[in-house]
Amino acid sequence: VAEFDLISRIRLRQLQRGRRPAAGEAWIGDDSAVATIAEGPLLITTDAVVEGVHFDLELVGLDDVGWKAMAASLSDIAAMGGRPTHSLVTVIGPPGNFDIDSLYDGLEDAAETYDSPIIGGDLSVGPVLVVSVTVVGSGAGVPGASWFTGGSRGGAEAPVLRSGASAGDILFVTGALGSSAAGLEMLRSGRSAEEPDLASAHRRPRPLLAEGATARFAGASAMTDVSDGLAVDLRHLAESSRVGIVVDQVPVAPGVSRSAKDPEAAALGGGEDYELIFSAPDPERIESAFVAAGLRRPIRIGRCTDDPEERRLAGGAMPHLGWEHEW
Amino acid sequence: VAEFDLISRIRLRQLQRGRRPAAGEAWIGDDSAVATIAEGPLLITTDAVVEGVHFDLELVGLDDVGWKAMAASLSDIAAMGGRPTHSLVTVIGPPGNFDIDSLYDGLEDAAETYDSPIIGGDLSVGPVLVVSVTVVGSGAGVPGASWFTGGSRGGAEAPVLRSGASAGDILFVTGALGSSAAGLEMLRSGRSAEEPDLASAHRRPRPLLAEGATARFAGASAMTDVSDGLAVDLRHLAESSRVGIVVDQVPVAPGVSRSAKDPEAAALGGGEDYELIFSAPDPERIESAFVAAGLRRPIRIGRCTDDPEERRLAGGAMPHLGWEHEW
Repeated sequence: VAEFDLISRIRLRQLQRGRRPAAGEAWIGDDSAVATIAEGPLLITTDAVVEGVHFDLELVGLDDVGWKAMAASLSDIAAMGGRPTHSLVTVIGPPGNFDIDSLYDGLEDAAETYDSPIIGGDLSVGPVLVVSVTVVGSGAGVPGASWFTGGSRGGAEAPVLRSGASAGDILFVTGALGSSAAGLEMLRSGRSAEEPDLASAHRRPRPLLAEGATARFAGASAMTDVSDGLAVDLRHLAESSRVGIVVDQVPVAPGVSRSAKDPEAAALGGGEDYELIFSAPDPERIESAFVAAGLRRPIRIGRCTDDPEERRLAGGAMPHLGWEHEW
Repeated sequence: VAEFDLISRIRLRQLQRGRRPAAGEAWIGDDSAVATIAEGPLLITTDAVVEGVHFDLELVGLDDVGWKAMAASLSDIAAMGGRPTHSLVTVIGPPGNFDIDSLYDGLEDAAETYDSPIIGGDLSVGPVLVVSVTVVGSGAGVPGASWFTGGSRGGAEAPVLRSGASAGDILFVTGALGSSAAGLEMLRSGRSAEEPDLASAHRRPRPLLAEGATARFAGASAMTDVSDGLAVDLRHLAESSRVGIVVDQVPVAPGVSRSAKDPEAAALGGGEDYELIFSAPDPERIESAFVAAGLRRPIRIGRCTDDPEERRLAGGAMPHLGWEHEW
């Protein structure tokens, strides 16, 4: 298959799905994509997944790889309390027969579900499959959410950074953890049918965009997503904010307790759950905003302290768990 | 080296170079970068280079790889007549000792030269080096260039697409071609010292941002850059615009005529020259705008015709030359 035929196929798929550029926009097929975005701060994030490093095609489908690559970048927009508007996809594919359609099925399903059409990208050959997704988003106010804005410390106009937590802020996580790591364990041992929700959490994670926007407009002071593991992601939030962290409990997803070899390690260090962790000075306001928005009530897991070296878990030291590349 | 240490090093390098986020911006180190851009259309483009496919580290330095990866994406913004504002860099690096500093020397040199600071990205391990650069740009009017705007057919507010050429438009190229391909030939045969300008054109191409903006504001109807080769890039412009193409002459760079085995093949099919090709209904207006801006006068190479199948070169058929990935 030749490059420009593939690009034509990707464009055709888009037309078949009824996705068309807005007035003044130019999508796939020019030197650069042209997008129109709302006024206000622009969010932009990019994330790459590499075959043999981030995924194993013996365990997941190409469509799952596409979905998850898109979902991971969308989750970074969620972790700012932003709204995605457009995405770009770069695919580096190994020589030989390459099922671009399966990959794009997953990419487009996620892009459409979260309203972030694919407007550009790049294609190249290479030794292993690499999928890199860039998502552009609006950091301006989320329509309909302005009733949350009263009294926010950070100002609802600003995206929520990792660096805004203060001593005394309460720490939340949007849901119980460990499903993705436990799901991978089940897939590897051929037991995924026993806990289909876990395998599904690993293959098709959901970016928590409504939760991120709700936390932002209810006064979250700092936020990030659980991509590398709760322990390491909390450490990043604490370091950026120069606060200490005291965690009283780590919520472990029910299926994880039943099936994982080490449920707490899966919840603390597994990563890729894409739940959001955030700090907030007014926890009641957070909880009532989530209830009012019809979302799962977030879980209080601890608090921020004024000793920037402090990292505690249930009375002991926070273990060094989580995902980090090493060269 | 661990991932988060590398990220810290990249941030530190940026501080040492005196690059800092503007008010309301957040650069490297959060889930998503926060940028502020001018109103008007947003341009966004992404391009990846892969070791063994796009470059050979026996022939070029890591700093050259960084420069060229950044320059190639900046050139896509130039080909819209836009102005770059921010960039994101994803590096997938092979395990083992990896000279991230050399790579970033080149990336940052290009980013600073063309005022497109690196505000985010991603790092991963992988089997070969991959550098993927996303550039965001403003498609709004270029400050100081508004004196070009009178009478433009496309409207100076709109970026220049590939699809705007009409029959009768004159075709231009901003400079003579073939230097990059001839430079690679010299590097491969160990003769690069004989023609240092050619090797330099291959290793350190320049994105023609001033030329792109000038062409746009002087009424260019369609534009693209010579990345895959003049023949194939002209074909893309013609197909997008549904016009025929008649080329009278292909300007070959002087060093190319002296040294390349097949100078016309280098100029027509070599690619990576990053000269701009564009069409315009009023060629005198284009030429006087380039002269007024102190730029090299662009070269008239042919014209667009009303037969969308027509592809001619100097009385014969346009040869099928140029770069395209095959799977």
